[in-house]
Amino acid sequence: MASAVSPLAPKSVPSMPVIAGVRLATAQAGIRYANRTDVLLVLFGEGTAAAGVFTRSKCPSAPVEWCRAHLKAGKARALVVNSGNANAFTGKSGRDATKLTATLAAKAAGCKANEVFLASTGVIGEPLDARKFGPVMSGLAARSASGGFHDAAKAIMTTDTFAKVATASAVIGGTKVTINGIAKGAGMIAPDMATMLSFIFTDAPVSASALQSILKDTVADTFNAVTIDGDTSTSDTLMAFATGTAVMRGAPKITKAGDSRLKGFRKAFHAVLADLSEQVARDGEGARKLVEIEVEGAVSKTSARKIAMSIANSPLVKTAIAGEDANWGRVVMAVGKAGEPANRDKLSIWFGGIRVAHKGARDPSYDEAKVSARMKEPKIFLRVQLGLGRGRDRVLTCDLTKEYVAINGDYRS
Amino acid sequence: MASAVSPLAPKSVPSMPVIAGVRLATAQAGIRYANRTDVLLVLFGEGTAAAGVFTRSKCPSAPVEWCRAHLKAGKARALVVNSGNANAFTGKSGRDATKLTATLAAKAAGCKANEVFLASTGVIGEPLDARKFGPVMSGLAARSASGGFHDAAKAIMTTDTFAKVATASAVIGGTKVTINGIAKGAGMIAPDMATMLSFIFTDAPVSASALQSILKDTVADTFNAVTIDGDTSTSDTLMAFATGTAVMRGAPKITKAGDSRLKGFRKAFHAVLADLSEQVARDGEGARKLVEIEVEGAVSKTSARKIAMSIANSPLVKTAIAGEDANWGRVVMAVGKAGEPANRDKLSIWFGGIRVAHKGARDPSYDEAKVSARMKEPKIFLRVQLGLGRGRDRVLTCDLTKEYVAINGDYRS
Repeated sequence: MASAVSPLAPKSVPSMPVIAGVRLATAQAGIRYANRTDVLLVLFGEGTAAAGVFTRSKCPSAPVEWCRAHLKAGKARALVVNSGNANAFTGKSGRDATKLTATLAAKAAGCKANEVFLASTGVIGEPLDARKFGPVMSGLAARSASGGFHDAAKAIMTTDTFAKVATASAVIGGTKVTINGIAKGAGMIAPDMATMLSFIFTDAPVSASALQSILKDTVADTFNAVTIDGDTSTSDTLMAFATGTAVMRGAPKITKAGDSRLKGFRKAFHAVLADLSEQVARDGEGARKLVEIEVEGAVSKTSARKIAMSIANSPLVKTAIAGEDANWGRVVMAVGKAGEPANRDKLSIWFGGIRVAHKGARDPSYDEAKVSARMKEPKIFLRVQLGLGRGRDRVLTCDLTKEYVAINGDYRS
Repeated sequence: MASAVSPLAPKSVPSMPVIAGVRLATAQAGIRYANRTDVLLVLFGEGTAAAGVFTRSKCPSAPVEWCRAHLKAGKARALVVNSGNANAFTGKSGRDATKLTATLAAKAAGCKANEVFLASTGVIGEPLDARKFGPVMSGLAARSASGGFHDAAKAIMTTDTFAKVATASAVIGGTKVTINGIAKGAGMIAPDMATMLSFIFTDAPVSASALQSILKDTVADTFNAVTIDGDTSTSDTLMAFATGTAVMRGAPKITKAGDSRLKGFRKAFHAVLADLSEQVARDGEGARKLVEIEVEGAVSKTSARKIAMSIANSPLVKTAIAGEDANWGRVVMAVGKAGEPANRDKLSIWFGGIRVAHKGARDPSYDEAKVSARMKEPKIFLRVQLGLGRGRDRVLTCDLTKEYVAINGDYRS
């Protein structure tokens, strides 16, 4: 399991401010591995608004179904996240496990079970023995404290090589509010299954419906614009919790996502999600290169996204980048197979800011030595100009290395 | 470039009968590599019908555009195939190269340029110097003979580890007809670009429109049901040529694809395409396992195909198979992400005929040791029962190994 820290890990880790109304604690429940924290309990003050977006998989995990069902009320008092077992494809026992976990947490938190949200990551298809949470839950609640975001990020890791945290602040009606986030990576699968989990916490007094709207808007160009291997987990979960405690410091309550006083908040919220989602790409399994793909001149943003994703998920493009090869032929291939409007004779391609192909042919001025030098850098910019319209988009991915195959090809046992 | 022959290569190679009206010759034109044949000329007798299907890429190669333009007449007198350069993304010079190649071949064959069909495979984005065909073309025509299908298959290889041929016969109106095919593989990319090329030759007297219809029908469950890495070449070409010479031995001319006298021919035609397309999967880059994926109980065949392809193209499923791991959790993931109707609690999964998951949970009777033994075999059967309807489909793929990454991650030079 243990891997060296990704060479793409951020060079520094921010210190995470406390958020009034958010208390965290972690413990070792022994779900799968010994000697590591594997359960996180987060307690929220009364009146905390909740929002969430989840996997698009048609076979979601039991915790995803639990969260979807209980999110309608928009209220949260507790969040329980465990690693080691995803409680996915576990049938009735999976539903029972979510119920038991929520009941145990509700008892410890002094709230209702339907105010508890759940996420699980790890092996799928194995029953989750939720009784293991019993002995640790009341201790977790008792120990919970307003710091500890780094520890929380650590407790939800599976094969991530570094813990992922981000923070930003904004001003709402003259009052400073804070946004903290933690995440675990996607395409991190050994021994079993990829899952992306992320949780955002803020003291901003925004309603559940406003938070849901902002979350949905923001995820499109952050987490949904990141791909590791094109595979989608049964358990992907991104939730946001707003305690509203900034009200006590004078912030106005805001109920509409379109409220102009949220401009700074939206920007800071975006920054936290962009930071976390980039960290996910930087910790893709076996990743040695962070790849930013920009597609311009498409007929629409949607079309640009599809083309960018076709490039980002192409095994041939990803292996070429692993080999530090500015193989624009494979980019043409990936543009061509996307099924979106494209005209070969208007297509131009840049690697690391150097144009290698122009209007349907090799760029005559293209200097292979210069491009080769750029390809040795840890971050690769790949830009495609389609020359058709004004649609543009940007996605992040990583390269496809032998280490990816090794990590995912090792036998489960 | 040189790789050991795939361990999945067929144990025996069929002897290929001659087909009256088809003459073949190969030569070394020195397109990219020295000391290997890299150009194939096939000459057809008068009245030969032609049919073709091509890449769905929006950025097709110059030869693909040439073939599409000239296929309308349905007549062929010559086919020129070269390896070493794909003449793709080469702009105007690419169009000029196709024209020059066809002109040179037409002169040698004594036909019109628009009766010459072309295919190129190899590097993309580099101009193809078609003048190199000049010195060899008349010699090719002079040397052409009715045998030599194995040599033809060899001349069109790029990084294939074995030459691909197949043959079958059928009876039309009491007269035996022959169908021969050659192919080069997909996902065979070093130094640049995957391309699947295949050419089918028959003496059956079927019209161009009937041949086109049969080709289109047959490709759906053969070549279009094979995937190596989900990437699509700019140059994929599958053409069929019917000389009609069996008429001289008493076969009736057939102009309608629906003619019941073509029943046996259709079956044999399907067998040749199925054989060649399976060989392509067996020679996928770095492949160590041939994987057959059967999806049943889907709401339709189209839905079953999409789910089967989602499984077949999943890097997580493919790496698990490379690791000889019956990781059904990843199969659930791939079913879930396909976006097609699926109900987790009705899903069952078999590896090598052993049911490992049943109705939404791990099969209680599942014996890991037995399944592990099956996973060590060179061919892996993966079966998914969705339990929703009667739609079923089957696709072939191969595993994703470190060798795939090595082959495609090596620098182009």
